[in-house]
Amino acid sequence: MPSAAKACDLILFGTKGDLARRKLLPALYQLEKAGLLQADTRIVGVARDQMDRAEYQALVKKNLATFVKKEPLDDDVVAAFEQRLHYVQVDLSSQQDYLKLKDVIDAEQRIPVSYFATPPALFPAICKGLHAAGLAEEPARVVLEKPIGHDLESSREINALVAQYFNENQIYRIDHYLGKETVLNLLALRFANAIFASNWDHNSIDHVQITVAEEVGVEGRWSYYDDAGQMRDMVQNHLLQVLTLIAMEPPARLDADSIRDEKLKVLKALRPINVSNVHEKTVRGQYAGGFVSGGSVPGYLDEEGSRANSSTETFVALKIDIDNWRWAGVPFYLRTGKRMPEKRSEVVICFKPQPHNIFHETYKHLPANKLIIRLQPDEGVEVQVMNKIPGLGEHMQLKQSKLDLSFDETFKSKRIADAYERLLLEALLGNQYLFVRRDEVEHAWRWVDGILDAWKATSESPKSYQAGSWGPVAAISLLARDDRNWDE
Amino acid sequence: MPSAAKACDLILFGTKGDLARRKLLPALYQLEKAGLLQADTRIVGVARDQMDRAEYQALVKKNLATFVKKEPLDDDVVAAFEQRLHYVQVDLSSQQDYLKLKDVIDAEQRIPVSYFATPPALFPAICKGLHAAGLAEEPARVVLEKPIGHDLESSREINALVAQYFNENQIYRIDHYLGKETVLNLLALRFANAIFASNWDHNSIDHVQITVAEEVGVEGRWSYYDDAGQMRDMVQNHLLQVLTLIAMEPPARLDADSIRDEKLKVLKALRPINVSNVHEKTVRGQYAGGFVSGGSVPGYLDEEGSRANSSTETFVALKIDIDNWRWAGVPFYLRTGKRMPEKRSEVVICFKPQPHNIFHETYKHLPANKLIIRLQPDEGVEVQVMNKIPGLGEHMQLKQSKLDLSFDETFKSKRIADAYERLLLEALLGNQYLFVRRDEVEHAWRWVDGILDAWKATSESPKSYQAGSWGPVAAISLLARDDRNWDE
Repeated sequence: MPSAAKACDLILFGTKGDLARRKLLPALYQLEKAGLLQADTRIVGVARDQMDRAEYQALVKKNLATFVKKEPLDDDVVAAFEQRLHYVQVDLSSQQDYLKLKDVIDAEQRIPVSYFATPPALFPAICKGLHAAGLAEEPARVVLEKPIGHDLESSREINALVAQYFNENQIYRIDHYLGKETVLNLLALRFANAIFASNWDHNSIDHVQITVAEEVGVEGRWSYYDDAGQMRDMVQNHLLQVLTLIAMEPPARLDADSIRDEKLKVLKALRPINVSNVHEKTVRGQYAGGFVSGGSVPGYLDEEGSRANSSTETFVALKIDIDNWRWAGVPFYLRTGKRMPEKRSEVVICFKPQPHNIFHETYKHLPANKLIIRLQPDEGVEVQVMNKIPGLGEHMQLKQSKLDLSFDETFKSKRIADAYERLLLEALLGNQYLFVRRDEVEHAWRWVDGILDAWKATSESPKSYQAGSWGPVAAISLLARDDRNWDE
Repeated sequence: MPSAAKACDLILFGTKGDLARRKLLPALYQLEKAGLLQADTRIVGVARDQMDRAEYQALVKKNLATFVKKEPLDDDVVAAFEQRLHYVQVDLSSQQDYLKLKDVIDAEQRIPVSYFATPPALFPAICKGLHAAGLAEEPARVVLEKPIGHDLESSREINALVAQYFNENQIYRIDHYLGKETVLNLLALRFANAIFASNWDHNSIDHVQITVAEEVGVEGRWSYYDDAGQMRDMVQNHLLQVLTLIAMEPPARLDADSIRDEKLKVLKALRPINVSNVHEKTVRGQYAGGFVSGGSVPGYLDEEGSRANSSTETFVALKIDIDNWRWAGVPFYLRTGKRMPEKRSEVVICFKPQPHNIFHETYKHLPANKLIIRLQPDEGVEVQVMNKIPGLGEHMQLKQSKLDLSFDETFKSKRIADAYERLLLEALLGNQYLFVRRDEVEHAWRWVDGILDAWKATSESPKSYQAGSWGPVAAISLLARDDRNWDE
């Protein structure tokens, strides 16, 4: 498969930054190890520091030793990887410096793929510089990290700026949730299995829950986080992306635009939340001090670097209606927060209950079927069904069993690739289907802005919740009002 | 649970016969071991031989030692079991002898439950004798073993005879397939899981296959078997019973008549097979010599005791249409035979394929989902789904995975009870739902007689198949004509 694609020069802007060090370089090492990089593909680190190639190679090796976890480094792989590494010193604000890049990049032989692992504020300068150096023309590609703006207007500015230099088919916007193994398996489950496909609508599904819980707090990023909050930081991108994959119509084909067209239709069908319904449909929370993993932790307003009067939310719960034929009457409940009891991301498809219970002598209340898609910590898919417990007896004894769809020899032995490995590989192969299109970003912001504006207009201050709890009581009431519960 | 039911005197007619020795007494021992027999329940062996109680107890102990398999006998359980054993010498044809039974049975304290583990020819005498001895009045029960006749007329005679002495609510007709763990689990699967229930019709199911394959031949019973053949011996009872449980509408309640009313409706909806369609809908086979489990075996006509010109079938394949709303256009393919490659009984629910294949780049033909219900040798339920194989790559790699619904700690550790344990227990508890009602037996015969008559009228002689094969080629063609295959 790699042989069919053209080799690339992957230009890593921000190669000394956290993302590159922790995620991108280890992911590239894994691609090397798996034999998935083209023989001729090179990695060109870019930073402000003066370094020669050997120094950069040494730096990357040290970096891999620190951040390639769960396994010892393979010397042969490291040696091969080293050969791909080049370095160019660039002051990103100096347009002159980009010409130095041009000398290193061989756009005739390889496709330049620029990865902007930098703050968005630098995007304009980089785009301009690449353009001037002739590294922005097709088939060159650009990979953008979030955040793409902090509201509709700012996201439009960034997108418009990049669009001055790159066409949409050159742009790869990262949402690392789309690189997760289980998110892809969701496509297989939904579209390769008629038994799920035929149950995938308001006739069979009662409601959907999406939970992205973090155990961590703001981790020293208080200021940065306080400008964003959980809605911008998690809902606008990760949770809405997962929601679109669950809710979209079957695409006609697996190509990038067939899928993204369907995802966009879901974003357009989200019922707006505004001052008229914000109180009924949303819950804002902010953590107070409490206990996580047995240790005492400070509240959000007592974290290092905090401002006393911040009303930024660290928790959001939403009840979302999708106004289309498939999902009429099927709420999607989302919740995401920091300082939850555990790190857990999952989607729960709650099917409708049996219309009639013939087992009422043993079960007054028969649990409904659930399909659980775990995104972390352990990726996997489970179906909850009711099964007879083997044995004799006057009444049938039933039991809720979990069928683990990854419970198979083939799957157990496989290493689950990190999301960044998949996304880097797809970017190098030129496949856009796991990247977010401009109109998706903007429609997601438009919808999220509605909520942010409504919170502002109604002065909805966040409800306090104890660190280590599942958020404010209001998040439980949000479902309880509909006679439902969060899946625990 | 046993404490709620009244104790019984289980009268074992034919206690020295094969069924009692191999199946019934070991099953009763297991019920004892599991603590499922009422403290006061007794087992009263009946045979022609002169024996005192101690001799009978010794005989039963010897019998248990031979036929309780896979585990050592528990001395304490055997000792407790022994205390329940009584013996009465009865010449079944002597009406006078039945009065001796009356002296032993205490119908005031216990419910007399007469188990006819004898040839049907003896049923009239036993019924009459029990009646004369006052052991046939309600709440007395009678358990009948197959065969209930060899065609509609003879089954009516037997049923009418028994009905002279017992009401239908006292009669427990055994079909041991109904006692299998997995057959009961089928009820749980169908009616406790909306995701299956909502897929259980012509919209979602393409067709159903029921296979009951035996590795054995006629095993020294040539004469007996030759009078019956596979249609009477297996299809009329076991296969049609399994078919009704798969096909029936959801009963309103789990009680005996609610379930049996629904099963009966299926039998009534079976499209008749007669001279006009018998060639298209049925395949008759008879095994020739061949190889089974690596050894050479004789053909049916070369078995010990055979007649050279027998045209009895040892294999049947059928394409059955159920003319009702739920199953219109969904064929049920049945096959059963002796001298097949392996002993295997299973039901395969083949769901319709995905209407559209978006994975055609990796899979030209995407396998449809299947639900497989294994009745033997290892009881269990599996769902076949398509799953993504973890890993990176340009195209999604899918794999057919089997989800074993019994793959659960709770299930693995459980001993699977033999069908006779369940059926004896239910008869002692007075639950009829796993027993066949008179009208079921007669409707099954009516339908089967249509086929037998059509074979006779068209002089359809059985097609030869090699022992150790899956039957005549025509059985494969039966599905191939519909562009389908037997599940292997």
